[in-house]
Amino acid sequence: MNKIRIGIIGYGNLGKSVELGIRQNKDMELVGVFTRREPSTIKTLTEGVKAYSIDEAKNMTDQIDVMVLCGGSMSDMPVQGPLFAGMFNTVDGYDTHAKIPDYFDAVNKNALEAGKVCIISSGWDPGMFSLNRLYAEAILPEGNTYTFWGKGVSQGHSDAIRRIKGVKNAKQYTIPIENAIEAVKKGDSPELTAREKHRRECFVVAEEGADKTQIEHDIKTMPNYFSDYDTEVHFITEEELEKNHSGLPHGGLVIRHGKTGLKGENNHVIEYKLDLDSNPDFTANVLLAYARAAYRLNQEGVSGAKTVVDIAPAYLSNKSGEEIRKSIL
Amino acid sequence: MNKIRIGIIGYGNLGKSVELGIRQNKDMELVGVFTRREPSTIKTLTEGVKAYSIDEAKNMTDQIDVMVLCGGSMSDMPVQGPLFAGMFNTVDGYDTHAKIPDYFDAVNKNALEAGKVCIISSGWDPGMFSLNRLYAEAILPEGNTYTFWGKGVSQGHSDAIRRIKGVKNAKQYTIPIENAIEAVKKGDSPELTAREKHRRECFVVAEEGADKTQIEHDIKTMPNYFSDYDTEVHFITEEELEKNHSGLPHGGLVIRHGKTGLKGENNHVIEYKLDLDSNPDFTANVLLAYARAAYRLNQEGVSGAKTVVDIAPAYLSNKSGEEIRKSIL
Repeated sequence: MNKIRIGIIGYGNLGKSVELGIRQNKDMELVGVFTRREPSTIKTLTEGVKAYSIDEAKNMTDQIDVMVLCGGSMSDMPVQGPLFAGMFNTVDGYDTHAKIPDYFDAVNKNALEAGKVCIISSGWDPGMFSLNRLYAEAILPEGNTYTFWGKGVSQGHSDAIRRIKGVKNAKQYTIPIENAIEAVKKGDSPELTAREKHRRECFVVAEEGADKTQIEHDIKTMPNYFSDYDTEVHFITEEELEKNHSGLPHGGLVIRHGKTGLKGENNHVIEYKLDLDSNPDFTANVLLAYARAAYRLNQEGVSGAKTVVDIAPAYLSNKSGEEIRKSIL
Repeated sequence: MNKIRIGIIGYGNLGKSVELGIRQNKDMELVGVFTRREPSTIKTLTEGVKAYSIDEAKNMTDQIDVMVLCGGSMSDMPVQGPLFAGMFNTVDGYDTHAKIPDYFDAVNKNALEAGKVCIISSGWDPGMFSLNRLYAEAILPEGNTYTFWGKGVSQGHSDAIRRIKGVKNAKQYTIPIENAIEAVKKGDSPELTAREKHRRECFVVAEEGADKTQIEHDIKTMPNYFSDYDTEVHFITEEELEKNHSGLPHGGLVIRHGKTGLKGENNHVIEYKLDLDSNPDFTANVLLAYARAAYRLNQEGVSGAKTVVDIAPAYLSNKSGEEIRKSIL
């Protein structure tokens, strides 16, 4: 069997997790890593696989079946997504929810022209959580869906703390509020504010001599990021941060409560829950399952931008239809 | 907008739940109920909709877009599934796992000849649980999947108790064992026997003067159904059974634990959990979501037997691709 030849654009946390994830999929092989850094400074973990300048990707369209885009959603993806859609089948985890429609259109145009399949906004949210919101809503039309995130590290919130004067380093955990989850499961259909759904816990390393009271105040009053939440701030040492908070765990749950029956007398709860030691590893593995789908759909002559809701689940599996019906159904 | 015109074959618990489920889906309407009983003895809950003899269905192929098959898997579906696949788009909840491959082939042959889409083995297991087994395995290739059922009423086990001499009525609950679930989530990858995964609780109404010790012995030693499980038997009155055990709740969970990282150092748990007041209502609602998919796929020119893994999730939703990308993704 010919393996699916994978390329990786961007060799940060996510790119490295994609590299490791390929080892778990016997039908895939890594061809190359593409970077904006000086390629000679990068050593991959995969024997015989080297780093290339990102500008070289366009010369390797015949060597790569699917390009996995691992850049940031803020500035990298809006450029790289449409660009590489014109050359390769791609998968990405573009996660700026509000801009997905525009991003979809831009990728779709180039993917159609190039005859490629490009699956955008894969991962877990958007991604698996989106799927579960859709399935649950279709099954229980009369009900409410809630998404909770955490407990897990929010990179955006950690970065925001690091930009405060006097802060040397920081990690921020988003934590769902149990009472809210219980109310949702009971079918109370609560209207929940941001504060009622999640709380925030911050571990901060202050610079020598910094004003900790001022730092705590600056965090708790920061608009959008913290001011709408109950926020706890703990000052710790760099050693403690390294020892106890160096991972990137995350997770969360999608819950839908719905009613059925002659008079809505029957209650139903659908719950999809993730508990992840490594956000980038899990995201990478989702991207790779969709890379398989992109490759197989393109082999069947399909092209254009897709999202997870457009992909029949069987395309993600390396098992045949017969095997799936026999062993999974 | 033309509504999707639904027919129901079989007007038992599931058929009645399908009828109620149609009310929750604004894009569907019920055309008729088809029964083996004398149609004049049946009054539907839907104004203007009547019951027909099942033999009349073949004369109504131009009036029904999707036929929802609500017969039993043991003896009805093996005949009705292939039969109606030759006339209509169909959905069914065929749940004899071991015979799904043969059933698929029989339905597929007739569906292809008739140019219809027939989605088999929908519902929650097989169905939503199958989907979640597939998704979880594709995302975490190195791991183990476990399925637990309950707490819920098993109709097959309740029926088995009712066949015992001296038993007037009975309800049996299948209950998952919490310790086993915890071990799975922790990543212990336990090898679990039937007894270690589930226990069984029986509520039995004995006939006047029956030998209760004998009944309890007959239940607990019944091969396949009870002998491999820890089983509790409670004798109660008919009134208590009616008052406290008349519902058909069910549910369960699919859990996959998997590892990622350079040395498998990162643990991940994916959990999909259902908590259902009414097994038939929930199953019916899943069938209807797949009825929408069957109709739309057939409109696109697709034909043949399908299972839930073959259907892109977007086909289940009454929202457009644009709406999904904007509001669900």
